[in-house]
Amino acid sequence: MCQLLGMNANTPTDVMFSFAGLAHRADEHKDGFGIAFFEDRGLRLFVDHKSARESPIAELVKVYPIRSGNVIAHVRKATQGEVTLENTHPFMRELWGRYWVFAHNGDLKDFQPRLHAAFRPVGCTDSERAFCWLMQELAKEHASVPTVAALSDTLRELLPRLAQHGTFNMLLSNGQALWAHGSTRLHWVERRHPFGAAKLADEDLSVDFAALTSPDDRVAVIATEPLTCDEAWTPFAPGEVIAFVDGVVLQPAA
Amino acid sequence: MCQLLGMNANTPTDVMFSFAGLAHRADEHKDGFGIAFFEDRGLRLFVDHKSARESPIAELVKVYPIRSGNVIAHVRKATQGEVTLENTHPFMRELWGRYWVFAHNGDLKDFQPRLHAAFRPVGCTDSERAFCWLMQELAKEHASVPTVAALSDTLRELLPRLAQHGTFNMLLSNGQALWAHGSTRLHWVERRHPFGAAKLADEDLSVDFAALTSPDDRVAVIATEPLTCDEAWTPFAPGEVIAFVDGVVLQPAA
Repeated sequence: MCQLLGMNANTPTDVMFSFAGLAHRADEHKDGFGIAFFEDRGLRLFVDHKSARESPIAELVKVYPIRSGNVIAHVRKATQGEVTLENTHPFMRELWGRYWVFAHNGDLKDFQPRLHAAFRPVGCTDSERAFCWLMQELAKEHASVPTVAALSDTLRELLPRLAQHGTFNMLLSNGQALWAHGSTRLHWVERRHPFGAAKLADEDLSVDFAALTSPDDRVAVIATEPLTCDEAWTPFAPGEVIAFVDGVVLQPAA
Repeated sequence: MCQLLGMNANTPTDVMFSFAGLAHRADEHKDGFGIAFFEDRGLRLFVDHKSARESPIAELVKVYPIRSGNVIAHVRKATQGEVTLENTHPFMRELWGRYWVFAHNGDLKDFQPRLHAAFRPVGCTDSERAFCWLMQELAKEHASVPTVAALSDTLRELLPRLAQHGTFNMLLSNGQALWAHGSTRLHWVERRHPFGAAKLADEDLSVDFAALTSPDDRVAVIATEPLTCDEAWTPFAPGEVIAFVDGVVLQPAA
């Protein structure tokens, strides 16, 4: 099964610490990796068919502090689709003049949606088909980019329709917010003042966030399994959708 | 003015030599750079707002031999639009289940096309507007991905309509072919058996292609100015469109 990592923050923040934790788990997930960084509306998307342990591109990401408000990363264990670059998550499309990035962990059985609009898969994964369907349905619901709250409402209707086809742990961002859908295995943690220290669960690496942050910083991290062993990670309930904005959970309208 | 670099080959080929030449010219073009590599249908797209001389990402590209059949690179000197990541070429979109990559050198005056379809600019450059218009018009002309010859015919109709708005040196690829439009400054060279040596025009760096290639290899390189001082580069005539496929010029139908 693949591993997901997401980060949403109110101040551009680097994810070198968390990505190091993710890359450490790449041993069993050697079918490529990818990571997308939003910088305002702009996007950097790195993908490689080599594992996050061996890839020179992963090495760059671990040492070059790219500060971003929204990050989505994925290390892949192929279930459907060959190990090729076009099947490597995250996937990216443009809608309403915004880039959208999507990564999926799980498996959608016999999922062949009717794709009649402007979004077609380039590769042959269930995940990219799901993303194209999601973009198509969002485009049908809204004529131009809606508010984050309105988008969240639409996603709460659409995501369960994908999840009914199988395991669907998912991260999605357009640079304004990060949406996550939990199906079987997904956890999140909020970091805010007073910041403490944290130790990676798999590697002998610690970081003192207090030394790296200011009191107003808010950072949410979402990962398949908790990445640190001394923070309070919350598991997603099956079918739960959370929208993260500026490093905090956006509460759905009552 | 920006600098363009394109490469089209019949065998996946690295562009480290040519990119080193391009990066050397980045001194005067310090407003970011980008490079896109097709690997079959898959795509790697690296962009940075730092110059190709300083960027750690450019450094990676110079030393990590990414082999590709179609490459488009751009070093930017901003004429329109701020120096931000979303204004950095090349731009990417998906159409008919294929990624498309576009880079532009020049300036389109007062170009505000009517964009009514699925392709909207994320940044604020004339170049990205031109790319979105081109994708929109291609999508109107063909219901699904046509042959390279048919695409070339359509592009020979569409590209002059963009060029009439100003200076329009352009590279476009979907991984099957690379199309170039020359307006004021664009050159190309074909490398094929018997391969010789070549020396970069700006830097004390030579390469012996004979040692790195097999007799069947065909490589076409397109650049704003000739990158080497001992090869026969051909300038584009104003308004000339050339389609490169498998490292050779595709002759238009009579």
